Amino acid sequence: MKFSQEDFEKAREQLKLLKTDPGNQVKLNIYALFKQATEGPCKAPKPGMLDFVKKAKWDAWQSLGNLPQDSARQKYIELVSSLVAAESSQVEATPPGSKAAYETLEVSTKDNITKIVLNRPKVKNAISTKMYDEIVEALEEAAKDDSVITVFTGNGDYYCSGNDLNNFTNLPANGLEEMAKNSADMLKDFVDHFIDFPKPLIAVVNGPAVGIAVTLLGLFDVVYATDRATFHTPFSKLGQSPEGCSSYTFPKIMGVSKATEMLLFNKKLTAAEACSQGLVTEVFPDQVFQKEVWARLKAYGSLPKNSLALSKQLMRSMEKEKLHEVNSQECECLKGRWLSDECMNAIMSFFQKSKL
Amino acid sequence: MKFSQEDFEKAREQLKLLKTDPGNQVKLNIYALFKQATEGPCKAPKPGMLDFVKKAKWDAWQSLGNLPQDSARQKYIELVSSLVAAESSQVEATPPGSKAAYETLEVSTKDNITKIVLNRPKVKNAISTKMYDEIVEALEEAAKDDSVITVFTGNGDYYCSGNDLNNFTNLPANGLEEMAKNSADMLKDFVDHFIDFPKPLIAVVNGPAVGIAVTLLGLFDVVYATDRATFHTPFSKLGQSPEGCSSYTFPKIMGVSKATEMLLFNKKLTAAEACSQGLVTEVFPDQVFQKEVWARLKAYGSLPKNSLALSKQLMRSMEKEKLHEVNSQECECLKGRWLSDECMNAIMSFFQKSKL
Amino acid sequence: MKFSQEDFEKAREQLKLLKTDPGNQVKLNIYALFKQATEGPCKAPKPGMLDFVKKAKWDAWQSLGNLPQDSARQKYIELVSSLVAAESSQVEATPPGSKAAYETLEVSTKDNITKIVLNRPKVKNAISTKMYDEIVEALEEAAKDDSVITVFTGNGDYYCSGNDLNNFTNLPANGLEEMAKNSADMLKDFVDHFIDFPKPLIAVVNGPAVGIAVTLLGLFDVVYATDRATFHTPFSKLGQSPEGCSSYTFPKIMGVSKATEMLLFNKKLTAAEACSQGLVTEVFPDQVFQKEVWARLKAYGSLPKNSLALSKQLMRSMEKEKLHEVNSQECECLKGRWLSDECMNAIMSFFQKSKL
Repeated sequence: MKFSQEDFEKAREQLKLLKTDPGNQVKLNIYALFKQATEGPCKAPKPGMLDFVKKAKWDAWQSLGNLPQDSARQKYIELVSSLVAAESSQVEATPPGSKAAYETLEVSTKDNITKIVLNRPKVKNAISTKMYDEIVEALEEAAKDDSVITVFTGNGDYYCSGNDLNNFTNLPANGLEEMAKNSADMLKDFVDHFIDFPKPLIAVVNGPAVGIAVTLLGLFDVVYATDRATFHTPFSKLGQSPEGCSSYTFPKIMGVSKATEMLLFNKKLTAAEACSQGLVTEVFPDQVFQKEVWARLKAYGSLPKNSLALSKQLMRSMEKEKLHEVNSQECECLKGRWLSDECMNAIMSFFQKSKL
Repeated sequence: MKFSQEDFEKAREQLKLLKTDPGNQVKLNIYALFKQATEGPCKAPKPGMLDFVKKAKWDAWQSLGNLPQDSARQKYIELVSSLVAAESSQVEATPPGSKAAYETLEVSTKDNITKIVLNRPKVKNAISTKMYDEIVEALEEAAKDDSVITVFTGNGDYYCSGNDLNNFTNLPANGLEEMAKNSADMLKDFVDHFIDFPKPLIAVVNGPAVGIAVTLLGLFDVVYATDRATFHTPFSKLGQSPEGCSSYTFPKIMGVSKATEMLLFNKKLTAAEACSQGLVTEVFPDQVFQKEVWARLKAYGSLPKNSLALSKQLMRSMEKEKLHEVNSQECECLKGRWLSDECMNAIMSFFQKSKL
Repeated sequence: MKFSQEDFEKAREQLKLLKTDPGNQVKLNIYALFKQATEGPCKAPKPGMLDFVKKAKWDAWQSLGNLPQDSARQKYIELVSSLVAAESSQVEATPPGSKAAYETLEVSTKDNITKIVLNRPKVKNAISTKMYDEIVEALEEAAKDDSVITVFTGNGDYYCSGNDLNNFTNLPANGLEEMAKNSADMLKDFVDHFIDFPKPLIAVVNGPAVGIAVTLLGLFDVVYATDRATFHTPFSKLGQSPEGCSSYTFPKIMGVSKATEMLLFNKKLTAAEACSQGLVTEVFPDQVFQKEVWARLKAYGSLPKNSLALSKQLMRSMEKEKLHEVNSQECECLKGRWLSDECMNAIMSFFQKSKL
């Protein structure tokens, strides 16, 4: 006999400290070994078919046959040790909350929630080329980590002021044509990552949102907003056209006519209007916004991870192909827009005004 | 001459008592024979093209040419007799309101409305395996009967508390795998019957609705609810995933974000919330609910039957294929869920709590 | 030297009077020629990559190389003259606001807005066969003209009372079958023109709307209504079925259940109800309706034309194929309805009542 009764008692205690549920099959196994170790082979009468739980336990115990009690005890201790070892190695591999270092984002994980914070408050969290790249990277990381849900929010007064127009001034060697092509490729890849994200994706809109920060909301699963938030997509004023799949998601969410007022005629919505049109799930007074929303998110983070992910994927799968097609068409249309007089005039006029 | 003038007068009286409209062609024929029998061949001037009704009547009379008045009278009497005979044989074949006997439902037809009542009030109308089968049978019967619309409602305080979890405890010989497969097959066939139902289908939600009783509402054409009703789909708490095509119909009805709160995050809606989100057509105060709803339904039942059925089928045809595909995917996903640890833990926990 | 300094100064003045923006490429060219003419070859330091506007201007000037100042001045004068000439010839070709003469419509263009007024106020703007044809013609004209948006409205108290039932009384030689076929063909072509219209299409609903005037609203991009407006589609009462793609657009806009109440069960909506169901974008008090709506439309008309047209086409392209398919199915269904007893009875009854 390699293990003492003391080791057996210690294993029982360690079992209670495990943080990760080892799954039903393992738990039934532990139960059976414990019974076999302490009472010997199963002699209990077979439970009725209707008693689902008792029957499963009885089957597990019964399956050990005439395994000696000492062997059962030894296997019990070994099984618990392996579970404890697996858990501590996991903890070492990924220290809680740590993420790769980002320049334009703050990313952390806590309470089964991965939180991605847009972090350029001095420019109202405008999305620079660097930030586009980092968001893609953060989404890829979040898709693979242990979190149950993923949350986007902004640092400071703004949620996000949209595309940083300075992105347009970085003319590559081959001029406008190449810039338009590169930008369209980058945008397509960026939006594709939102379409394909496999877990529930939640926006915590802590202030005004503009342009692509608004259109992308149609690809989120839940959108909570402070009553200070506004929603504005002034595309036509800039000679541009809608992106982020909004030409498809917005008519679906709010009907063609309200979508047209926003996407073509530059109507800016209050948080209450965005909520009544279905773009925002719920609006909270600013004073209690963070507290109430995070209490709710914490509860969501405690729900069964796979059930949530599969349910989200089920809802998304119905239109994933369509969304990728829409994204392609929108990027193609924008590429043409960026080379158009209407757009160039509007952007020149923007920079001329901003220099006054 | 086989028929007397008296027979002719009697036929005129019988005609007034007919309950079934014999159709325009027959009515024009009756009109023409009557005119021919009483006035002889048509000598009236041809009406103008614009006078639709007169022209149709004139054509019918004219088409009898020089048929002798006696022959016209005889044909008139024969035609009316055949209509009267057809009507009385119909009445004998299907005594009014009678239906096959059901164990878990009450089914009857009145005022052109087939009413299917969920009738297990002691268990809040939870849907047992037997009830699934009987609902399928009742839908098949209602599709074929003479009714104009079909109505679902519940007996007692609840509309329906959803799937009876006891269905999970009837383990077949080959265990869980087989149970999961059988349940998924049954569910798919059940939901398919709602997708394919050819007439307007109306839910009269007389109290709280849970789970599949809520998700199926997305496949109804109209949903009237008492203000006592609530709508709750706690799938993820049970480690499960949405069914009844709700992963497609709910985002379509209320937008992705409000659908996600219900289907993933277990939000329970009041009747007013369900109405403002489009899941419920109209809410009524409980005191007047039955009276007002049935007055309205009676009016619907008096509308042209084929016009309603074809209009409903037109609306449904746009997405029927999609709905069947969604149903398959949802059932496949659920089959996997039922064998998962998340689901088994949740159901075991439910039965353990319910034994305390 | 063909041109004097005086000609050069005159060209500078003419340039300021141009009404049409000649496009960025031309403007950069004008800028470069002016600099070359007045300062000689470009000697300015190359601007940084980040200064988008300066860089474009510098490139244009630089590209003229060592072109002599006199030649630059001459080319400048020629370029401006050609722009002035192009503009005045355009003005002659299409006198402002004039349109082909219509019998049932008033059509005009002003402030970049083409306005199509339904103009049979004595019959509440019911759509006669002639009006169907003229609307198709007006849409074809508006699609090609210089306007930015197109607006429909009605003359008098009604927006439009729907299909003129007198259309049914013009029986062609081959009778009902042919009438049904002709009507279905005409309807299909009519609705196709709304599906394919390439610019933002806006309805200004100045009073009650009935039947096809309501269903077509689902194909408009924005719908503004006076609070006097009502929306009524009593198809089933007439034994008919929905058209104008409403069997697809209405469920998409307001959910299946509210669409069913309108399209199957003849529910008449107030303007406020139509707005909360998403069919109407915004409702205005009748006293300020025209003033407020037209101020808004004028602002829309001043936005970049191509940006708006392409954005609208992007939104429409996602479902254009589906809409044409729906239109075909609806017309096919109606063709059957028009030959049915239910429909013939209802129309006969309508005319009989209206003769009392």
